[in-house]
Amino acid sequence: MTALAEAVLAGNRRALSRLLTHIENENPIAAEAVAALFPHTGQAHRIGITGAPGTGKSTLVAALAAGYRQRGQTVAVLAVDPTSPFTGGAVLGDRIRMGALAGDKGVFVRSVATRGNLGGITRSTRQLMHVLDAAGYDRVIVETVGAGQSEVEVVDMAHTTVVVEAPGLGDSVQAIKAGILEIADVLVINKADLPGAVQTRRALQQMLELGHPTKTMTSGHHGPLMQSQTPAPTDTELWLPPLLETVSPQSQGIDELIDALDRHREYLQTSGLGQQHQQQVAADDFFDVLKETLFAEFLSHLPSDTLAQTLTDIQARKISPKEAVDHVLHEYQAQQ
Amino acid sequence: MTALAEAVLAGNRRALSRLLTHIENENPIAAEAVAALFPHTGQAHRIGITGAPGTGKSTLVAALAAGYRQRGQTVAVLAVDPTSPFTGGAVLGDRIRMGALAGDKGVFVRSVATRGNLGGITRSTRQLMHVLDAAGYDRVIVETVGAGQSEVEVVDMAHTTVVVEAPGLGDSVQAIKAGILEIADVLVINKADLPGAVQTRRALQQMLELGHPTKTMTSGHHGPLMQSQTPAPTDTELWLPPLLETVSPQSQGIDELIDALDRHREYLQTSGLGQQHQQQVAADDFFDVLKETLFAEFLSHLPSDTLAQTLTDIQARKISPKEAVDHVLHEYQAQQ
Repeated sequence: MTALAEAVLAGNRRALSRLLTHIENENPIAAEAVAALFPHTGQAHRIGITGAPGTGKSTLVAALAAGYRQRGQTVAVLAVDPTSPFTGGAVLGDRIRMGALAGDKGVFVRSVATRGNLGGITRSTRQLMHVLDAAGYDRVIVETVGAGQSEVEVVDMAHTTVVVEAPGLGDSVQAIKAGILEIADVLVINKADLPGAVQTRRALQQMLELGHPTKTMTSGHHGPLMQSQTPAPTDTELWLPPLLETVSPQSQGIDELIDALDRHREYLQTSGLGQQHQQQVAADDFFDVLKETLFAEFLSHLPSDTLAQTLTDIQARKISPKEAVDHVLHEYQAQQ
Repeated sequence: MTALAEAVLAGNRRALSRLLTHIENENPIAAEAVAALFPHTGQAHRIGITGAPGTGKSTLVAALAAGYRQRGQTVAVLAVDPTSPFTGGAVLGDRIRMGALAGDKGVFVRSVATRGNLGGITRSTRQLMHVLDAAGYDRVIVETVGAGQSEVEVVDMAHTTVVVEAPGLGDSVQAIKAGILEIADVLVINKADLPGAVQTRRALQQMLELGHPTKTMTSGHHGPLMQSQTPAPTDTELWLPPLLETVSPQSQGIDELIDALDRHREYLQTSGLGQQHQQQVAADDFFDVLKETLFAEFLSHLPSDTLAQTLTDIQARKISPKEAVDHVLHEYQAQQ
């Protein structure tokens, strides 16, 4: 056990921050600590919250965190902000919006600037969640700006996914496409005091009715690997996503939202789907690390002039990327 | 040269469709044809168009395609639709919205349902663009729903990136965060006849002024690999993203948009940034294929009971993903 991992387990917030930074920077120090913390994961309820820009997700997350605190639960928030891919500028904004909870040691907020490539973000978010889980937070909330595939991947790591909508977001048919609904375990109409809330509710209700009863956790976002290992739940076990309304600044509807999240967690446990989710997370974790390790190892053996020449040849269209890969792999194997 | 690749080069649309489907399905037939077509790529102007749901991107793309056709240019459109991650349902909608151009052989439209993992989507979109380029279309437009990291990656494959905004999209501060502006080569306020257009223009103008003059193609979305190989452009070569207004259904502003896109293409050629972009694309292509090939090859050598046991151990938290990877790699190397 590394000193850093021990400090995180002991509840040292500064150590926790430092470890998260190491993970984001892909500092080798992180890998060891994450591995040491891994046996301590699996306690937190991991909640993904997603929705289009303008739905008020951030305020909703702040209200939700406050609600959990009132019930005595500790909360960690990861704000994944892909609208700021090149600047780490999200941190300040988060501090401001979580202001009321700033002095509370039962709340931990972290922004993840999504610099770098996407595989990297998914991988590091996965590790950040493991660490916050191991650090003992009862609820780990991941907030993402919605509807993109990246969000779907982050949401895959969550036990329960909340999709946030709001009235009057332009072309509502586009904003609430079926795809994003398919990943919702709980649907929230935030800013429910705005004009248009009734229409938004009606539209969502219709889409929900169209979309069910086929919706189950197995229906979409889990890989084929797991589908054969655990039987699909029977009809009586189907989860129908509740449609809730909130007005976050007044904490209106937050209690009902927390109740729904708790009910979904219970459902996961009793239906066996939670177990299945764990299997999928384990597989994703393993494959992610394996892919990166194989790649890094191979690159470290590839002479830099070979690499440079290969890239030049591809750019000049003398050789296709696939041919180039076949070529370097063949050369490598011949040398072994 | 495969028969399929030959048919694509000869302008056979049905063959083109079939090849695109093979790529999406990761059918091995595709790899050979893509490799054969690779020397024929590099002619098209690749244009990425992104923006939040509700900005009217689809209608803008249809108007843009019609505008190009009037100038005698052929156009291929790839609509990457991550709001529909689990359904292939986007195809119909595209056919409908491109209706006016449906009989025109100079236009080719293809929807990419973003089923599957993200690396896969980026990789296959990359190949789809290569194929449309090789098929001889003068302009290859990739339309993505905006602001996520996945879109940024797709946009990286484009020479010129258009960010689309629209008035009245809820919380405009969120919708037009700095991150998405950083990737814009051309900024469009679509639906410019709606109330609020003046405010949107003012807000964007301010953000542009804040953001520049540091904005260049090298500032963000290109990897460190290339930054050392090509010198940054001098100050006189800076590109300042124009801010245009369009009303797509009336094709208002489309001519100006096409002019701006042409100017940007010229800028890329004269400044040397286009060359730099080609280098980056070559590297991304190579690394993508390399990563997947290494992974697939290793998995094919991993006994399935070892894999199953490893995943079970990770799930039971007996071993961390990193330790598991180290373990299977070590075992594999011992056997060699």
